[in-house]
Amino acid sequence: MNYQTILQEIHTEILPLLGEGKVADYIPALAKADPSDFAMSITCNDGRVYSVGASEQRFSIQSISKVYGFTLALKAYRDKLYKRVWREPSGDPFNSLVQLEYEEGIPRNPFINAGAIVISDTLISKHKENSLNEVLTLIQESAEMEDVSISEEVFTSEMDHSFRNRSLANLMKSFGNLDNDVQSVLEHYFAQCSVMMNTQELSRSMLYLAHDGTDPISKKTFLTPPQAKRINAVMLTCGHYDASGDFAFRVGLPGKSGVGGGIVAVVPRVMSIAVYSPALNAQGNSLVGTKALELFTTKTGLSIF
Amino acid sequence: MNYQTILQEIHTEILPLLGEGKVADYIPALAKADPSDFAMSITCNDGRVYSVGASEQRFSIQSISKVYGFTLALKAYRDKLYKRVWREPSGDPFNSLVQLEYEEGIPRNPFINAGAIVISDTLISKHKENSLNEVLTLIQESAEMEDVSISEEVFTSEMDHSFRNRSLANLMKSFGNLDNDVQSVLEHYFAQCSVMMNTQELSRSMLYLAHDGTDPISKKTFLTPPQAKRINAVMLTCGHYDASGDFAFRVGLPGKSGVGGGIVAVVPRVMSIAVYSPALNAQGNSLVGTKALELFTTKTGLSIF
Amino acid sequence: MNYQTILQEIHTEILPLLGEGKVADYIPALAKADPSDFAMSITCNDGRVYSVGASEQRFSIQSISKVYGFTLALKAYRDKLYKRVWREPSGDPFNSLVQLEYEEGIPRNPFINAGAIVISDTLISKHKENSLNEVLTLIQESAEMEDVSISEEVFTSEMDHSFRNRSLANLMKSFGNLDNDVQSVLEHYFAQCSVMMNTQELSRSMLYLAHDGTDPISKKTFLTPPQAKRINAVMLTCGHYDASGDFAFRVGLPGKSGVGGGIVAVVPRVMSIAVYSPALNAQGNSLVGTKALELFTTKTGLSIF
Amino acid sequence: MNYQTILQEIHTEILPLLGEGKVADYIPALAKADPSDFAMSITCNDGRVYSVGASEQRFSIQSISKVYGFTLALKAYRDKLYKRVWREPSGDPFNSLVQLEYEEGIPRNPFINAGAIVISDTLISKHKENSLNEVLTLIQESAEMEDVSISEEVFTSEMDHSFRNRSLANLMKSFGNLDNDVQSVLEHYFAQCSVMMNTQELSRSMLYLAHDGTDPISKKTFLTPPQAKRINAVMLTCGHYDASGDFAFRVGLPGKSGVGGGIVAVVPRVMSIAVYSPALNAQGNSLVGTKALELFTTKTGLSIF
Repeated sequence: MNYQTILQEIHTEILPLLGEGKVADYIPALAKADPSDFAMSITCNDGRVYSVGASEQRFSIQSISKVYGFTLALKAYRDKLYKRVWREPSGDPFNSLVQLEYEEGIPRNPFINAGAIVISDTLISKHKENSLNEVLTLIQESAEMEDVSISEEVFTSEMDHSFRNRSLANLMKSFGNLDNDVQSVLEHYFAQCSVMMNTQELSRSMLYLAHDGTDPISKKTFLTPPQAKRINAVMLTCGHYDASGDFAFRVGLPGKSGVGGGIVAVVPRVMSIAVYSPALNAQGNSLVGTKALELFTTKTGLSIF
Repeated sequence: MNYQTILQEIHTEILPLLGEGKVADYIPALAKADPSDFAMSITCNDGRVYSVGASEQRFSIQSISKVYGFTLALKAYRDKLYKRVWREPSGDPFNSLVQLEYEEGIPRNPFINAGAIVISDTLISKHKENSLNEVLTLIQESAEMEDVSISEEVFTSEMDHSFRNRSLANLMKSFGNLDNDVQSVLEHYFAQCSVMMNTQELSRSMLYLAHDGTDPISKKTFLTPPQAKRINAVMLTCGHYDASGDFAFRVGLPGKSGVGGGIVAVVPRVMSIAVYSPALNAQGNSLVGTKALELFTTKTGLSIF
Repeated sequence: MNYQTILQEIHTEILPLLGEGKVADYIPALAKADPSDFAMSITCNDGRVYSVGASEQRFSIQSISKVYGFTLALKAYRDKLYKRVWREPSGDPFNSLVQLEYEEGIPRNPFINAGAIVISDTLISKHKENSLNEVLTLIQESAEMEDVSISEEVFTSEMDHSFRNRSLANLMKSFGNLDNDVQSVLEHYFAQCSVMMNTQELSRSMLYLAHDGTDPISKKTFLTPPQAKRINAVMLTCGHYDASGDFAFRVGLPGKSGVGGGIVAVVPRVMSIAVYSPALNAQGNSLVGTKALELFTTKTGLSIF
Repeated sequence: MNYQTILQEIHTEILPLLGEGKVADYIPALAKADPSDFAMSITCNDGRVYSVGASEQRFSIQSISKVYGFTLALKAYRDKLYKRVWREPSGDPFNSLVQLEYEEGIPRNPFINAGAIVISDTLISKHKENSLNEVLTLIQESAEMEDVSISEEVFTSEMDHSFRNRSLANLMKSFGNLDNDVQSVLEHYFAQCSVMMNTQELSRSMLYLAHDGTDPISKKTFLTPPQAKRINAVMLTCGHYDASGDFAFRVGLPGKSGVGGGIVAVVPRVMSIAVYSPALNAQGNSLVGTKALELFTTKTGLSIF
């Protein structure tokens, strides 16, 4: 199969959709994104790389960073992690407090905000003041980037508009499910959200999830095979907030989206994919990005189902 | 890989668990089941069949019947079906009214009770008094059974203890999401739940979902390839009520459980599996059945992730 | 104080509002009501009666009948009644299932639909096939009416549109909080809702609640003094669904509204008031009726606060 | 009626209950209270005062301070206040986030924590750095105390255990319903909760609510008559969290409780009552205090119903 041709077909087919959806505007740093931007990259387990669009343009990875946090926490705590965060779909929007209150401060999964905040807390407990560095190192090593940077503008903007996440964090703290102080935990969380990457780097970075926890190119091992599979499983059932079922239904791949417009997806044993387009659909996921991935699995048959 | 040996290993390993869990006791017909019963069958796309335990003993398929209902409704209504039932995980127990009320009578997916009741309604609208026959014919043809029978005892028992499902049905009726009268819809629903099958028949029957909608042995086509994939996707995200994430995490296959103790699972492009053990875990799924499937994917590596 | 003058002032002041609000239209029998109708009657503990508007025109009392049901159940079961229905405001619309599910089938109070359905069930358990007669006799005796009639048209219409109440009843049945069959309980419930009364009769009838349980004119005792006080307390906190706080705030009297457009209110130790105007506000209470009562307590100072 | 005799009877009758219930222990400053403490005071509109028990022993008034906050905010903003906080019973525990999220950051009433936090915010907007002084002045003037003090120990303890209230405040801030910064608002809120008063002072202070907004002794006017009535109405429907219906039912007076063990109640046009006993019932209200008030209205007939 000629993946480059397929990417170009997809690029052509999504062009008419580029005006639809709405760029995230809750912080100015995101609102400035150009809704007509688009990029898509594939990195195969055998090292081949294909890209289309602005695949070198970096954007803030936002919730995609939750995959890295989950990876490090799973490595550090193994199954003990699930005492503090579950792995069930939430059936609710990504930042709902309702379920969190009924379930006494235990978030449904690591991919809703509450879950990622707890994950951040566990990383601080484990790595102290190096917790953020651990995330940046994982990103740098898995993507083989020379260096990884954080957008100060995005970070500051997020901190200034963090009331709802602060509400979630304080609620969990009141239930005893945060060990560190709320401010430190939120700083770690928003810093990892503010990491800047492009689709080439993202698709390269996620390859360890397509290859049982070990990067097939660098041979570095980030997780055990069962751990990698389980992150894929949780991405499939929970990776897109309350549109997770729809994404599984339409795309049929484990994936994780970010409000910055990026989505990553994994074809187990074959490849990793990253796509970028900042205008979001009603559920807060990249509208064109979701469509591009749907076209990709339809054209290639590379769904897991 | 020698599947028969693997099944025997699994049988040995689950033996110590056979006392755990609790047989469904909300109706007498189910409460009589022997908690030490166990059976597991595999039917491969190439026609090979492997079984262990009481694989010829029939039991009521209960919610596994929702797969057949979904199949027929998807065939009849295609994407229009999703106006009346969604495809998102519910994040709530299988018979919760809360979400249904907030979401104005549109069930989250076809695999919670409310969703299956709406599906039953659509089948009655389409096939009138033949609606149940259509389900039985699908089962008979896909399983190549000589005839399919319903347990009158289970059916009567279900109808006598149907208050909560009757509550769900009336709520949806009040929102305008049932076209037929509540009594007829519930009769169809409980009749299909009362179908008796064994693990050999179940694993044979689900083969069309492992082979893009067409039975690889009989060559009969039940669904288009995209439709088959999407049923698998919905089984993965929604097939086990609010333990769907856990099942995806531990087993890593699309599957559907029934309160009678059966579970079916699909390895796309490879095989279909059925397991039976009537004692249930806290989420209402077969405790030993779930464990047996987890052992199977661990031993064979046949997870989709 | 000249009550007749006050009633006439109120009549003049509410005239401009008579076009506002919306007549209940979930059943045809109610939808036919004339939104410009208005009536208001006062019966004082000393026997004086004052009326304005169409005070002889009967309408279906609907949820006002819950006061009679509560009266009879309290008399029959005393404090044991509160095991099956609480006396707390619901904070939710009048027919919500959410709270009922979380609270395992125990309704919040006797004035939401679920509570009145349980009350109906207790009356059937106590009085068997005479349960409805008991309610009619209470109405007839307390209002000193010659005979009390039920609108067959309203009753039939209610039964035909009873899906949500049927859902509530089945849910409570599933939790074991209904002893009789759902159909009988709903028939009792809708029959008492379909009783036809006018404002003169209603204000006369409620006098026992303004006089410690004993009608000051006929000297008949319907409740003990503590029981009468407690019905008043529950009317104040729960009598108007999720507008109960607003009614207490604006009117400052115990009261109970019906979707047919009637409202009764009690001035303890002084009088009983009934008002009628069929157009409802957003919370399902008579818009002009609520305003008329607010004007009355403002003009007379006869609030309990 | 000899109120002193009645108070002594009540004191005798509640003695056997003094071991029941549980002192609030979420902060050390409250946990130290002696569960066998009891005091009760009455101040009549004509100036007579009656007390029993340790009526000069001060305790932190906690949520009773919400009455003073509501008084000042109502005076400052009149009906505009209700755009930011409603006056409906919540039907939920006192610090629930669920309802607040569904209702987009508008608290149900001024007597749940979220409502009192909004009230604090409005007072800061109005009085800037004098906001707390305004509350202290109202208390000092209405109680005719020489000076009013705040327990630094209680205040510090509250601030250290404020995660859930901080969660509520941040949630409202995210919905745009807090104008000032969260920290300042919480400091005001916890400071007013930490005011120390005894039952004599409390019963004296609340007299303006028993006399149409004007203290009958000092002749100082704190509210208009309609405003005073409405605070009474909201106390009746909402003053005791999700036991408000039960309090209305058993006691039959407008009242407000605090987790420190105090309760105030108002007999409109007659008197104000304060009671203290630190052990709480399951709903977080003084167990013996509630019982003492119930005995009082039973013995005197001074219920509003």
